[in-house]
Order: sequence, then structure tokens, then C-alpha cells
Amino acid sequence: MTTDRVKTGIEGFDEMLGGGYIPQTANLIEGAPGTGKTTLGMQFIYNGIVKFNEPGLIITFEEFPHQYYHNAASFGWDFNQLEKEGLLKIIMTSPEVTRQDLENVGGIIETQVAQMGVRRVLVDSMTHFERLTQNATDLRQIEYSFINALKREGLTCLLTKESPALLGDAPEGDSEIAFVVDSYAILRYVEIDSAISKAALILKMRGSDHAKEIRQYEIDPQAGFQLKSKFEGQEGILSGNPSRSKVDAFDKAFIE
Amino acid sequence: MTTDRVKTGIEGFDEMLGGGYIPQTANLIEGAPGTGKTTLGMQFIYNGIVKFNEPGLIITFEEFPHQYYHNAASFGWDFNQLEKEGLLKIIMTSPEVTRQDLENVGGIIETQVAQMGVRRVLVDSMTHFERLTQNATDLRQIEYSFINALKREGLTCLLTKESPALLGDAPEGDSEIAFVVDSYAILRYVEIDSAISKAALILKMRGSDHAKEIRQYEIDPQAGFQLKSKFEGQEGILSGNPSRSKVDAFDKAFIE
Amino acid sequence: MTTDRVKTGIEGFDEMLGGGYIPQTANLIEGAPGTGKTTLGMQFIYNGIVKFNEPGLIITFEEFPHQYYHNAASFGWDFNQLEKEGLLKIIMTSPEVTRQDLENVGGIIETQVAQMGVRRVLVDSMTHFERLTQNATDLRQIEYSFINALKREGLTCLLTKESPALLGDAPEGDSEIAFVVDSYAILRYVEIDSAISKAALILKMRGSDHAKEIRQYEIDPQAGFQLKSKFEGQEGILSGNPSRSKVDAFDKAFIE
Amino acid sequence: MTTDRVKTGIEGFDEMLGGGYIPQTANLIEGAPGTGKTTLGMQFIYNGIVKFNEPGLIITFEEFPHQYYHNAASFGWDFNQLEKEGLLKIIMTSPEVTRQDLENVGGIIETQVAQMGVRRVLVDSMTHFERLTQNATDLRQIEYSFINALKREGLTCLLTKESPALLGDAPEGDSEIAFVVDSYAILRYVEIDSAISKAALILKMRGSDHAKEIRQYEIDPQAGFQLKSKFEGQEGILSGNPSRSKVDAFDKAFIE
Amino acid sequence: MTTDRVKTGIEGFDEMLGGGYIPQTANLIEGAPGTGKTTLGMQFIYNGIVKFNEPGLIITFEEFPHQYYHNAASFGWDFNQLEKEGLLKIIMTSPEVTRQDLENVGGIIETQVAQMGVRRVLVDSMTHFERLTQNATDLRQIEYSFINALKREGLTCLLTKESPALLGDAPEGDSEIAFVVDSYAILRYVEIDSAISKAALILKMRGSDHAKEIRQYEIDPQAGFQLKSKFEGQEGILSGNPSRSKVDAFDKAFIE
Amino acid sequence: MTTDRVKTGIEGFDEMLGGGYIPQTANLIEGAPGTGKTTLGMQFIYNGIVKFNEPGLIITFEEFPHQYYHNAASFGWDFNQLEKEGLLKIIMTSPEVTRQDLENVGGIIETQVAQMGVRRVLVDSMTHFERLTQNATDLRQIEYSFINALKREGLTCLLTKESPALLGDAPEGDSEIAFVVDSYAILRYVEIDSAISKAALILKMRGSDHAKEIRQYEIDPQAGFQLKSKFEGQEGILSGNPSRSKVDAFDKAFIE
Repeated sequence: MTTDRVKTGIEGFDEMLGGGYIPQTANLIEGAPGTGKTTLGMQFIYNGIVKFNEPGLIITFEEFPHQYYHNAASFGWDFNQLEKEGLLKIIMTSPEVTRQDLENVGGIIETQVAQMGVRRVLVDSMTHFERLTQNATDLRQIEYSFINALKREGLTCLLTKESPALLGDAPEGDSEIAFVVDSYAILRYVEIDSAISKAALILKMRGSDHAKEIRQYEIDPQAGFQLKSKFEGQEGILSGNPSRSKVDAFDKAFIE
Repeated sequence: MTTDRVKTGIEGFDEMLGGGYIPQTANLIEGAPGTGKTTLGMQFIYNGIVKFNEPGLIITFEEFPHQYYHNAASFGWDFNQLEKEGLLKIIMTSPEVTRQDLENVGGIIETQVAQMGVRRVLVDSMTHFERLTQNATDLRQIEYSFINALKREGLTCLLTKESPALLGDAPEGDSEIAFVVDSYAILRYVEIDSAISKAALILKMRGSDHAKEIRQYEIDPQAGFQLKSKFEGQEGILSGNPSRSKVDAFDKAFIE
Repeated sequence: MTTDRVKTGIEGFDEMLGGGYIPQTANLIEGAPGTGKTTLGMQFIYNGIVKFNEPGLIITFEEFPHQYYHNAASFGWDFNQLEKEGLLKIIMTSPEVTRQDLENVGGIIETQVAQMGVRRVLVDSMTHFERLTQNATDLRQIEYSFINALKREGLTCLLTKESPALLGDAPEGDSEIAFVVDSYAILRYVEIDSAISKAALILKMRGSDHAKEIRQYEIDPQAGFQLKSKFEGQEGILSGNPSRSKVDAFDKAFIE
Repeated sequence: MTTDRVKTGIEGFDEMLGGGYIPQTANLIEGAPGTGKTTLGMQFIYNGIVKFNEPGLIITFEEFPHQYYHNAASFGWDFNQLEKEGLLKIIMTSPEVTRQDLENVGGIIETQVAQMGVRRVLVDSMTHFERLTQNATDLRQIEYSFINALKREGLTCLLTKESPALLGDAPEGDSEIAFVVDSYAILRYVEIDSAISKAALILKMRGSDHAKEIRQYEIDPQAGFQLKSKFEGQEGILSGNPSRSKVDAFDKAFIE
Repeated sequence: MTTDRVKTGIEGFDEMLGGGYIPQTANLIEGAPGTGKTTLGMQFIYNGIVKFNEPGLIITFEEFPHQYYHNAASFGWDFNQLEKEGLLKIIMTSPEVTRQDLENVGGIIETQVAQMGVRRVLVDSMTHFERLTQNATDLRQIEYSFINALKREGLTCLLTKESPALLGDAPEGDSEIAFVVDSYAILRYVEIDSAISKAALILKMRGSDHAKEIRQYEIDPQAGFQLKSKFEGQEGILSGNPSRSKVDAFDKAFIE
Repeated sequence: MTTDRVKTGIEGFDEMLGGGYIPQTANLIEGAPGTGKTTLGMQFIYNGIVKFNEPGLIITFEEFPHQYYHNAASFGWDFNQLEKEGLLKIIMTSPEVTRQDLENVGGIIETQVAQMGVRRVLVDSMTHFERLTQNATDLRQIEYSFINALKREGLTCLLTKESPALLGDAPEGDSEIAFVVDSYAILRYVEIDSAISKAALILKMRGSDHAKEIRQYEIDPQAGFQLKSKFEGQEGILSGNPSRSKVDAFDKAFIE
């Protein structure tokens, strides 16, 4: 069953996803600044090209392509070269232009997909769609249409979303996009033992089983997104300020 | 007494409902993204058809019918075939159109109910009614009229509602629909032992006894909504960040 | 002193009220959906008629009379028959109409009271007055005038009020009606031992002593509102997420 | 030094105030519905008349005089008779009218003070001034002028203020009146041992020492406001949801 | 180094400030009603005159000068006499007038400083500047200009600021003035052992070391602001609802 | 690899940054009033000049240059002299002017950089950009353009940002600037043992590993920003109100 999954190529993360993403789905990654959303997205695209022979597209609404070259290069990924080889395309555009492009026959994205054989797309980030409207219902319809247009092109989509809260959840569900995507992963800062760890969790995955555990991860300056072991003996990890669970604390104090 | 209940056919869940839903009632299921509201609703419709010989209707305000075919198929439920056999009808529409349709004699829904003998309806989701008005009082009257119109057609209704908060309650009661429905169930994410569990609870059920306990459940990729055992030794489950209760913690640490 | 009280006829609840409500007072019952506000109100009216020979009036701003017949019937209370016998009157109206009616000599309510000898009234619910104005001061004056008009008719009033928060208090005091009523009771959901209990508390009662303890209760599908014993060994019940008190936890763990 | 204090005549409360209120000061009592603000105020006026020979004035912005007669009578205080004897005057008015009255020479209040020899005034409640303006700065100036006008008449003022939160503090300081009064007492609900207690605290008292401890009190249906002992072994009383302090809990569990 | 400090003359407080305030700086004191901001300010001015021979100025935006005479007299400080001797000047004005006065050559404040040799100024309170504008940026510029104008006159400034929260921090940083002053002290209510203590803390002091510890203090009816010992064995003092720290609690329970 | 880093010259802090800042990056320092943002920034500029021979620029939107001279002098840094030597330039300007200046060829900043060979810039503070627009999306684009313009000049940027909350996180992510910078450090007040400590943490650093631990620091009146050891045995440091972790507390109480 996992043979037809779209693998991220990130050890452990594909296992959390039950083998990888399901083809032609929209997959959301949400996190605070510095949690590695874009790194995870770049790695999804890079591994797609070099490990699974699937050309990729990056749609960016803020950062210039050279910033991606620069950031990718620090992990040893030569995005500039891949683009020259016709395996990667980075498009800097705006949500407005992208929407219209996808509605037209023969738009840029459709053309790239046809010519390059693009299979994966990173949209960095969905947060920029919020500039299009103040109305939550309109925003949801725009995002839903956009996502479906990408899926109709045959693409497996990784969508990043910025979380406004540093620790724990955002104070209110500021976007309803989590309801319309096919999978939803959250990246969180967690304070443990007077240091900051990072936690990854798959909250939702339509049509597939997935891991329920909260896993530690690091952004390795060489290797990128690296999953570590599950957290142990902590309560309230997703609040960002966990405390050692009582049973574990007693064990540590009296038995060990 | 339970003989005339409208059973969901989900083991354990009917028992929580005191035997099943009461005929011609409106029953609300509320949950965050990925908690399985739609899966529970589809299962209510599917089991109605194949186990209890009750044709069903799905009214959707966002997802296309093929998305339901796709999602249902992953659980082994052939919605496409059921629709061909005249046992299921999926109507993609808008809250505006549906309201008017129900006010007219001979509207689409009334016609379907008459022709197909529909007994159950899934409305996915009530959250889309919020686009009709910014006024909470108007919204409540619209929702109340809509629900009563469905009940007058003789339908037992399962209504989904999206919760904007990932963990715990929504920061404010963003809709008053819970006051006008006949039963109200909530689905919640719960962090326990560094992993995410799911919790189901029946909060309200007019004219019937119902289970008061908070039960674990899973969305099984083959079988759908599956109830598990009651939570044990936890305090604050509905907050999403429970802690092991002190008595239980002492027992675990010193006695076990 | 308790001989002239207006008894609810609910075992234990009258004791909490120091013998029952004081005649010609306005008494508020506030609770979240499913806590049994309306059931308590119907029982106050029903017991008034059948146990204390006091005809009753129900003023509803949303539900149809047949919904009350239906709900009451599930408890074995034949409201339809009582209405035929001239002992009960259910008036479905609007806050606007009711205000005007009470200001006129010979209005409907005044007439009903005179003809039927009505002594008790249930207003279900005061929350609907909030549609009349966005201004908190105006709302308060409207509610105060309405309550006084009912009291001038010689009625003992039970007023329901919806609480927008599922667990614990509403985030802000969304209505000032609690300041103008004569008594104020709150109904709350409480999570204990991984299940949901219900808690009742009399917070305020002008001109009378009343119970200060927080009591458990259930909505029995046959008997209606049923008071149970006081909570024991819990801290923070009214927050909805209590924890076992430390002393009690130590006792349970080490001594029992 | 305490000889020239304006005593409330409430045992224990005068001691908390360092002997009583200071003459010609404005003294604020804030509390949630049912905490007994008005009872305390009536008792201040009643005791002034019958124990200390100081005629009193009650300015009310909502309740009718007969409501005060009624409420006072339940404590055995015959306000109607005192008014006939010229020792008490209850004026039902509006904040607007009162402001203007105090600005005029020979206004009603000034006249009453001169004719009756009024020494004490209860203003019930300052919350109604909030209807005069939406602007916090304007409100403060209005309240400050009003208070000073009363003080210039030689009156010792007890001002009630409604707290919008049932338990704990109001979510924001909704009025700045606490900064301009001479003393500030708060009345709070406190949940202890699964019951509701009431707590009184003097937070501020210009020009005098005062008790810092948080005292329990009850509203006795015969005697009115009655101070009880200090709370013991509790942390977080003013939050409304205190917990037994750890030291006290250990003592109770292991030593007692 | 401490020789050229502007001493408050309050025992312990000058030590917390590293010897006293630095000359020609703006120093903020923030606190809830009753925490003694104005008392501390009056003491700073009074001690300046009688202990350090530095004439003082009090700028008030609300209270009349006689209120300061009255309040000061209760501590035994004869402000009326000091004003007659030309050592103190109390100016009751408005933020608008004060701003203009400071911009003009030969304004009242400049004149007073020149004639009296004023060295210290108390501004009571900065909160009244908030009436000048709803715009946070404009407010900040106004406050910054005002503060600099006072400093250019050679004055060492003590500025009071009202905190809208009774316990703990204000829900949001309602003013940015803390960023523009040279030192920032906060006064807080703290509930400990079922009583209310007061806590003082120096949070910021440009160009100087200062105490980091949280100290208890009292407003003594004779002596004014009196520093007491550091808090001990408490966690979360600044939240207003501290709890005894676990280590301390264990020690108390088992060892003492 | 660390040889080409832009060192702050602050012992320990460069190690936290994996050797120092990366050249031509924008680096954010966020903190409450008094946490030492500006001191850290001045030290970055001062050390750049005297230790690493890199001329520096300070762009200030509020404080006058002489205030920087004064503040720097208290640490023994002679900014006035450095400016005379052409190694430092302090520009007091507005966000509006700075934006335009950077868009023009031959603007002041460009000219200074060319003439002085400026390598480092301190922008104090980015918070003042918020006055330019109420629209979060516009603000983000303005800030992003500004930052990129500075980076195009070849500068390594240290940007300060004011945090509106005294303890813990700001209630909402009031600015999205953290998403667009290359590194993000936060400075926090932390209450421990009844005193206020300060905590520094690097949350994000693009293209580099960095320390994850939360370190104590002090603002030394002679030496400026001084890193201390890691916190130990505390939970919830970033909340500002940590508690001793249970394991640590047990150890302290029973074993030590």
C-alpha cells in the first residue's frame, strides 16, 4: 500500500505519514518562525528530484529565488543547478496572480507542469493569501479553489502556514485552511529542561493511518529536517510549557 | 425502548446514545480538523443504507461529491454504487439555496425524500451557515428554521460543526446552534503520554438517557470511527492537556 | 417561614432554596446547552400545577409549543392535557411583543393570569432579549422592566439564561441580568474521573438563606431534574476541570 | 484616633477599616451579583441612624424605594418608618439628574442634607454612570466630580460597584473609579471544599492603616453582613478557585 | 559613585536603586489602586526638601492641591507650610496645558524651576496623557517629548502610572512609556497566607546596577512607604497568586 | 566555518550563535523594557569597531544621539569619540525617511556605507515601523523591503523589537517580522527565588546551527551584556513564572 505514496525521503517522517503523502493531495505544515517549515518543504522538493525522480515546483510569495538557492545551499542542495537541468522551477509571484494563472488554460503553472513533468509543489506560504480578503468565508473559498486547482494538475502539494504564537496554539483559529487540506502537521517549540526542543505531530491524514505520537526533531545544518525519538514522561507538550509527569517524576526521584 | 432508535451502526456509539439517535431529531457533532466528523457522518449514512435499509442524503456546502466517493472508498464504502442504486444522494449546494429549497413545496430535497424514501441526512457542515450573516441572532433563527424544515421531512439529521480550537474548547461560544439541536456530541484531541488521542463525549440528548463518560476513539483507515475504552486516571481531558490524577499517579509510583 | 414559599417540588432543590422560591420574585437559572435549564423550568411549572394547584404559564421565544409537549411527554408530563384543562398556557411570542403586551392594560398575559389564575411563569429564555439591542445599558433596563411587569402580575418567575461557555464561566459577564434578579442559580458541566457530571449551585437569593454547597444532579429521562449528593474532595469544580484536592488524594493513596 | 471614625456598626468590619471609615470620604465596595454589596450599604445607613444617630441618604439608579423597604424588612430594618421619621431618605433618580442636582445651589440633595442633617450616603450603584459615556476618561472625570460634590456636602459615602466576573477578577479594569476613591473593598466568591464561601478584603484606605487579611463573611438572613474568621491554608483565594496550600495539605494528611 | 545620586530618603529603596535615582532622569512607578504610588512620590518630594535641601514640584492632573495637603498631613508632612516657604509647589493642570507650557520660553514650570531652584518633580499620573490621543504612536511621542522637556529643566522626575489589573500584569502593554523612561519600578499586590502583601521590584535602570530581588513593603500610616524583607519560598509572586515553592513546602512539612 | 562570522564579541553569545552572526543577514532581538536590547545592540556595534575593525551605523527612530553617547559612556564606550574618528555614525531619523533614503541611489545610508566602510548596523527599534500602517500585510512588506535594502548594502543588521508583555509571550503575534529575519533571539524576564532574572534564547538561525538552551544573563553596569550559565531545574522559564521541576524539588528536599 505504501508503494504508491509520495515519499518525503525524510527518515521517520514518511513512517509517521504511513509511508508518505498520498498522491494529488494538499498537505499543510504549520509552525512558528524558525520551526523549519520551509526547510521541510525544500527537502520534500529536493528529495523528490534526486531520490524519486519527480520534478518539483516552488511557489513563493515573499522570498526571492536566490534566497532559496542560498538557504538550500547551506544544506548542500544545489537548487540553482537543478533549475538549470529543468528539474526544479522556483516561481516568485503573488496570490492574486497565481489564482488567475490557475484559472486560465495554458497558464504558467500548467505549462511548467506539462513541460517539466512536475509532480510536487511547495507553496510558501499560504499565510500570504490572508492579504486577499478580510472575510474568513471568502478566504476559505479562495484557498479551497487554489488547492483544488493544484490537485487537478496532478500535483502533490506541501503548503506551509505560519503560526502567530511562539509557544502553544494560536489564540484563535485564525484560518480555516486546516479543514480543507488532506493532511495537517504541526511543528511546535517545546521548553524542556531549560532548553528549546522542537516537536512534530501529524494531526490529520485523510484516507490513511498515521502516527499519533509527538516526535522530537531538529533542523540539522547539514542534513535538514531530522526526526528524533518520541518525547517521554512529559505532560502538555503541545502547550509549549510541558511538565514532567508525576509518575515519571516519582520514578526519577525515588527509584532511579 | 431502543427498538425505535435510529442506529448509527457504530459499535459502542449507539450504546452511548442510549440505543441510537431518536427519530426525526437534529444531532450535532462538533470537532477540530481531523477529528473525524465527516467520517462519522458518512458512516451514519452508509450503515443506514446497508445495515438498516434506510436511504440517505448528504448535503455538502464545500466538498465535491467525488471527494466523498474518494474518502468513502478508502473505508471500503462504495458511495458511487449506492447512488446509482438510488439509495444515496449527495447534493452539493449552498446554504442559501438549501434554505429556499426547503421553503418551497416540491423542492429538490422534498422530492428526493419522497422518491427515494430518504430517512437520514448528513449536513456537512453547519459552519458554512455562518457566511449568511454576521448577526448571531439572525444566524440562530436561520439554523433553527433549517433544522426544523429537515425534521418536518421526517429525517433524522446528523449535523457537523467545525471547532476553531485545536485543543480544548473554543475561546468563545461562536455559535448558538448547540442550544437548538436535540443532541450534541463533541470530539476532542487529547494529549496523553506524548501522543495525541481522540475523545468523544455526548453532552446533551433530549428525551433520552445517554452515557456521561468520555471515551477514546480512533479513525481506523479500514473500519472508520471506532470507539475504545473510557479514559482512566486523567484529569482535565476536555482541556486537551490532561494530567494524570494524583491518586492514580501515587498508585502507579508506589504500589504497582 | 417556609410555608409561604413557592416550591419547585424537586426534592433537595427546594431545600437548597431555603424552602422554595419567594413569591413574586424573578429567579434566574443559567447553564450551557444540555444542562437542563428548560427541564428544570418545565418541572417548576408542572409540579406547580399537579402538586401545588398553581396554574402556570410558559413564554417561549424560539421553540414551538408542540416541542414542549414532546419534551414534557418524555418525562411523563402531559402538557397538552393540562393546557386543555386550563391549567397551563404556552405562549410562543417574541421579546418585542411580550414587552408591549405587558405595558398594555388587558394584554394577553394579564388576561391569562386573570382568567386562569396563573401563579408561575417560565420564560425560556432571557437570552433572546439580547436581540433587541446592542447596548448593555438599554438591555438591562428592558430586562428589568420586563421582570418587574411579570412580578406586578403576582407571578413567581423562573427565567432561563444560556451560558456561552461549555466548561467554566463565560469569558466575560455578557449580561447584567444577574444583578437585577432576586435569585441566581448556575448549572455547570464538571469533568470528574473521565466523565461529565453536572453541578448546581445557588449563588444569590435575596431575603433568604440558601445552601452554599455545590451539588451534583442528573437529568433523569423519567423523573427530570434530580439532585444528588454534594461533591467531595474536589477543588475548582466551577472551573469545569476540577482536580482532586491534595488532602483527599493523599488519603486515598496512602490510607484507604 | 478611632473616635472620629464613621463606624459601619458591623462587628469586625470596622476593625478591618482601622476603626471605621474616615469622615467625608468616598468608599467603594465592589462585588459580583449576590455578594451583598447593597446589604452592606443598607446596613451602613441603618446602623448610622439607629446606632450612631446619623441620618442617611440612599441614592438609587435602578431599584424602586419599595424594593429597599422590602429587602431591608427581611433583615428586620424598617426603612419605611425611618423615612417617615425623617432619618432616612431614598431617592430614585438617574446619574444625569444627580450630577446636575449637585451642581446647583439648593439642589435636592443639598436641601435634604441641610434639612435632615444627613451624614451618610449610599450610592447604589456607580456602575450606572457607565451609561453616560463610552469614553473612559470622560467617565472618570464625571465620577470624580460626583464623588467630590458628595464629599463637599460633608457626607461619608459608600459606593457600590458591580463586578462583571463571577469568580476572580474582571478580565480588565473596566472602570478607573478605584483610583479616585478613598477606600476600596472587594467582595469575592470563593470555592472551597465543594461549596461557595464569600471573601472580603480592604485593598486600599487613604490616610489609615487597615487589615490586610482576607476574611470570610456571610449574608445572614436576619443580621445581614457578618464577618467570620480569616481563611486558613488556602492559596489563590482571590482567583475564586483556591487550592489548599502544600504545607497545609501535608500537615492534614500526615500529621493530623 | 552613589554620592551624586538623587536619594528618595526611603530606607532600603535607595539601596535597591543602587544608591538613588540618577540626576535628570525620568523614573516610572507603576501600580494598581492602593499600592502607594502617590505616597512614594510625595515622600520622594518631601524627603528631597527636608533631608536633601532640594525644592520640589508636584504636577497633578486630577487631585486638588488640598487633597495632597490632606494626604501628606496624615503622614505628618506639612505640604501647606512647605509651599508657603517656597520649597514646594503643587500645580494642578492638564496634560494639554503642561505640554504647551514646557514648549514656551518662560513658561510656568520653567519659571518655578528658576525661581525656587526646583530639583525634583512628581507627575501624578502619566495615565492622564492617554486622554490626549487614541493613537499609541502619537501618545508615545507626546510622552517622550514631555519627559525630555522636564529633564532639560534639570529635574529628576518621578512619574506614576496606574495599572488597570488588580493582581498580576495588565492583560496587554497598554502604554509604551516603560520603553522611554530611564528607570521602571512596579508595585504589585500579592496574596500570601490568605492576606494581601505588597511587592516592589526595580525592573529597569539605565546606566546603573540595581537590586533584582522582589521586596515586600507596607504603606505605614505614620511613616509612609516602608520596605520590608525579600519574599522567601514563593513562586510566581508577580502573578499576584504565588504558591509556596515545592522545596520550601517539603522542608516546612517534614523538616521543621 | 566560524571564521567568516560577524562576531558580537560578547563572550558566550557568539558561541550560542554558532560562532557569530552570518554576514549580510538581518538579526532580530526582542525583549520587554529593561531587558537590554539596546545595550546588546550598542555592544555589537562597539565591539565591531574596536575588536574587529568594522565601522558601524546606528539608526534610531526615537532617542537622540546624545542619549546613546550617554548610555554608552556608562559602560565606558566613547561613542562620541568613535563618531569623530569616522568609525561610527548615529542617524536619528524616521521610518518614512529611511525607507525613501534606501530606495534612492546615493542616499545618506548608502553614502555613509561607501565613505566609512560600514559593515554593521543597529536599527533601534523596528517597533517604530508599526506607525506607518495599520495593515499587517503592508507592514510586513515594508519591513521586508527595508531589511533587504540594508542587506544589499552589505550590512549585517541587528534589529531590536519591543515586546509589549512584561512576563512571558505577547498575547498575540503582533508583528510578523520574526518570519522574515534570518535569526531571532528573545530576551525575557524570569521570576526565580523571589527575584527577577533575565533569560536569552536563540529561537531561529537560518543556515547555521545554534544553541538551544536558555541562558541567564545580566546587564553589567560596567561590561554590558554578560551571559551566565544555563538555567537548571526549572520548568516554564519562557512563561516568566517558572516552577522548580518536580524531580529537582524532590532531590533538593530529600537527598541534598
